[in-house]
Amino acid sequence: MNAEVLTIGTELLLGQILDTNTLYLGKKLAEVGVNLYYKTTVGDNVGRVKEALGIACSRVDLVIITGGLGPTVDDITRQAVAEFTGRQLIADPGTLSALAARFSSRGIKMTENNRQQAYIPEGAVIIENNNGTAPGFIAESGNKIIAAMPGVPMEMYPMMENSILPYIMGKLGGVHEVIKSRSLKVVGLGESLVDDRINDLFRESSNPTIGVYAHLTEVEIRLTAKAGDVDSAGKLIDELEKKVFERLPDNIYGRDDETLEQKAGELLKKLGLTVSTAESCTAGLLSHRLTNAPGSSAYFLGGMVSYHNDVKIKALGVERAIIEKFGAVSPECAIAMAASARGLFKTDCGVAITGIAGPDGGTAEKPVGLVFIAVDIKGGAARAHKFILPGSREGVRSRAAQTALWLLCGALKGTL
Amino acid sequence: MNAEVLTIGTELLLGQILDTNTLYLGKKLAEVGVNLYYKTTVGDNVGRVKEALGIACSRVDLVIITGGLGPTVDDITRQAVAEFTGRQLIADPGTLSALAARFSSRGIKMTENNRQQAYIPEGAVIIENNNGTAPGFIAESGNKIIAAMPGVPMEMYPMMENSILPYIMGKLGGVHEVIKSRSLKVVGLGESLVDDRINDLFRESSNPTIGVYAHLTEVEIRLTAKAGDVDSAGKLIDELEKKVFERLPDNIYGRDDETLEQKAGELLKKLGLTVSTAESCTAGLLSHRLTNAPGSSAYFLGGMVSYHNDVKIKALGVERAIIEKFGAVSPECAIAMAASARGLFKTDCGVAITGIAGPDGGTAEKPVGLVFIAVDIKGGAARAHKFILPGSREGVRSRAAQTALWLLCGALKGTL
Repeated sequence: MNAEVLTIGTELLLGQILDTNTLYLGKKLAEVGVNLYYKTTVGDNVGRVKEALGIACSRVDLVIITGGLGPTVDDITRQAVAEFTGRQLIADPGTLSALAARFSSRGIKMTENNRQQAYIPEGAVIIENNNGTAPGFIAESGNKIIAAMPGVPMEMYPMMENSILPYIMGKLGGVHEVIKSRSLKVVGLGESLVDDRINDLFRESSNPTIGVYAHLTEVEIRLTAKAGDVDSAGKLIDELEKKVFERLPDNIYGRDDETLEQKAGELLKKLGLTVSTAESCTAGLLSHRLTNAPGSSAYFLGGMVSYHNDVKIKALGVERAIIEKFGAVSPECAIAMAASARGLFKTDCGVAITGIAGPDGGTAEKPVGLVFIAVDIKGGAARAHKFILPGSREGVRSRAAQTALWLLCGALKGTL
Repeated sequence: MNAEVLTIGTELLLGQILDTNTLYLGKKLAEVGVNLYYKTTVGDNVGRVKEALGIACSRVDLVIITGGLGPTVDDITRQAVAEFTGRQLIADPGTLSALAARFSSRGIKMTENNRQQAYIPEGAVIIENNNGTAPGFIAESGNKIIAAMPGVPMEMYPMMENSILPYIMGKLGGVHEVIKSRSLKVVGLGESLVDDRINDLFRESSNPTIGVYAHLTEVEIRLTAKAGDVDSAGKLIDELEKKVFERLPDNIYGRDDETLEQKAGELLKKLGLTVSTAESCTAGLLSHRLTNAPGSSAYFLGGMVSYHNDVKIKALGVERAIIEKFGAVSPECAIAMAASARGLFKTDCGVAITGIAGPDGGTAEKPVGLVFIAVDIKGGAARAHKFILPGSREGVRSRAAQTALWLLCGALKGTL
C-alpha cells in the first residue's frame, strides 16, 4: 500500500508553524509497512485541496489528511472531501449530541460554527476525537482510502493509533512487511569517528540498514529492519545491535528515548549514592538535567553555580591559591570544585564543570570551548578530564553538561 | 508570483528527520510577497521527482527544490532537473577546481562521487555554496523558474538569502507586494486571556492581521502586514503594535528574537546591579537562562541549587524554623531563600524559586504546579509571588524560570 500525507493549513505555508505531524505519520506508516511516497501541503482553499486530492488519488492508495476540520470558515477539509468524492455532507447525530453535551457541561452556548464539525461526508466512517471537538473520518472512494484527522497533534495521535492504523492493518490483511527502527545513542565521539568504527557494518548489512545522525550533544545510530512482523524485525535489530555495541562499548549509553540523566539516576539509586554539582560555564544546566527525572531528589541534593571567582573561593570553598596559580579554567580548579561540592552538600559524589563557553574570553592558550570536568566519588581518586568542545556558546554549554553526565556514569560503572 | 517548495529525501518520508527548511522558506518567500501555495516532499527517486516537477510547473511560476544535491547515488536532483528540462548535465569548471582545491587542502583524494557535484544542467545559473561542497543552481524552463539548493540548513540559508531571493526580486521588478511580520512576546498571561484583551483589534484590522500563538513559556502575538515595500509594511505594524502594547503593557516584554534573559541583563547593566539565585524545583534552570547571554558575568555572580531541605538550611542559610513552620514550598521560604542568596553571593538582587514540579509530591493543599518566586532587591521590600503553573514536570519548571525572569524585570523596572 502506498500513501500520501496531505496537510492543510495556510499557516504551514507562511512559515508560521513547524509541521511535526508528518514526521509522526511517516514513522507510524513505516511501522506497518505502508510506503509514504509523497507529502503535500496546501492552504485553506477548497479548490486547491480538491486538486491535491485528485493528484494524490491518481498516484497512491491511501491519502491521510490532517488539518482543516475545526469550526471556523477556514476549515474546508470536510467540504473539499465531500465535493471531491461526490457526496453530501450529513450531520452525524451522535457527534452532534456529544458536541451539545460538551458545550452545555461548560455552560457555553453552542454556535452554528461548532455544529459544522458534526457534518461528515455521507457514508464515511467517523473517527471519534476524545481530546477535542472535531471528529475525523475515513471515506473510501473507488479503491482509494481518504482518512481525515484534525491537525492538533494531541488530538491526531490517538486517532491515528486507535482508529486509522487498525483500519489500515485490516485492509492490508496478513501479507505485509513491517519496518521497525531502533536508535542507539552515542556520546563522547563525533559523527565521523562513529562512522569510522562501524562503516564496515554498513556495507555488510542491507537489512537492517544503519544510519548515523549527528545531534547537538550526541550521535544517533539508527538501525532499521524490514520483516514480516514486528518480532522478526526486532530480532534482526537485536543481532546487529550487538555488533554495533561491541565497536562502541563505552560510548553507547542507551536506546530511543532514554537519556543520560536517567542512566546516571539509575546507577546512583542502585549504588545508594548521592550527588552534588559545582558549575561555572554551564551555570546550572548540569543540575537541571540531573533533576529532569521525577524522583531525582532521592540522589541529587544540591549544586552551586560558582560563576564569579569570588564565589568559587568564598561560597564554594576553592582555595584562592589554586585559582591564582592555575586559573579558574584548569584541571586543578575542576577537582577542587568537585571536592568542595561534596563537602558543602555532604554527598557521596561531586561533579564539577569549568570552562570557556565563549564567544569571548578565549586565549591562544585557553581557547573558547576548553572545558575541564571533574568527577569525585567517595573512596576513589578524583579525576579531571579536558575537552575542547565545538560550537556556539549554547553548543559548548550543552555538550559540557552532556559530557559531565557521561563521565559520571562511567565513574559510577567503574565502582560497580 | 506563485511558488511551490519541493523537498527531496526519503528520510523526510520515513519520519526520521523533521523538515525545518520549508518553515524557513515559507517565511522568506512571504517577506518578498511570493505566494507559497504548495509544499511537496518526495523520496530519492528520479521518476517521482520528475513527476513532481511536472505537477509543480503546471501550477506555479517558481519551484524551489531542497535536497538531493550531495555526492551519493541517492542524490538525484541534478539528474531529475536535467531530464525534466531536457538538458545535458555539464561539469562546471569553476566548481570542479574549487572542489579539487578543497580536497587537496585537506590532503584527501577527491573521489568520482564528489566530482558529480560539479555537474549542473546546461545553461543553469550556478549558486555558490560557501558552507559545503554541493553548489545550487537556477534553471529557467519556459516561463518557469526552478531553483535547487542543498537540504542542509546551514548551507541553504545563505544561498537563499544571497542568491535566490535577489534573483526572484529581480524577476518581480518594482511591482509587487511584500509581507512583513513582527512577533510580540507576552509573558504572565495565557493564550485565552491575551485573546480577550485584544480580540476587538482582530476584527478592526485586516491589514495588518493579528495571530495569537501559545508556546511553552510564553504567548506570541504576530502582526503581519502587506504593503508595497518593507518600510510601509513596517509602519502599518508600528501603528497596530502601539495599540496592542497599550492593552498589555506589563506583559509584552520584547519582539521577535528577543529573550527575557536579555531584557533582564540589559536592565541589570543599566542599573549597575548584580544578581544571584536560589533555586529548588527549577534546579539551575534560572541560573542557566540568566547566563545565556554572552557577557552575563558582568551581573550574574552565582547561584545555589538547594534541592534538599538540609541544603536550604545548612548551605544556603535559610532558618530551619521557617521551613518547619511554613514548609519549603511557601512564600516565607522563597523570601528567605532570595535573601540568603543575596547574602551568600554578595549581590544587589536575589531571585528564588521553590515549588512542586511533579508529577508526584503534590497534596490537596499544595498541588503539583504550586510555585513561589521571590525577588529581593537592595533597598526595596522583598516580595513573594504565588503561581499554579500548568503542564508536565518540564512545563512547570520552564514556566517557573520564565516567570522568575519576568518578575525580576518588573522589579528592576520599578526601581528605574
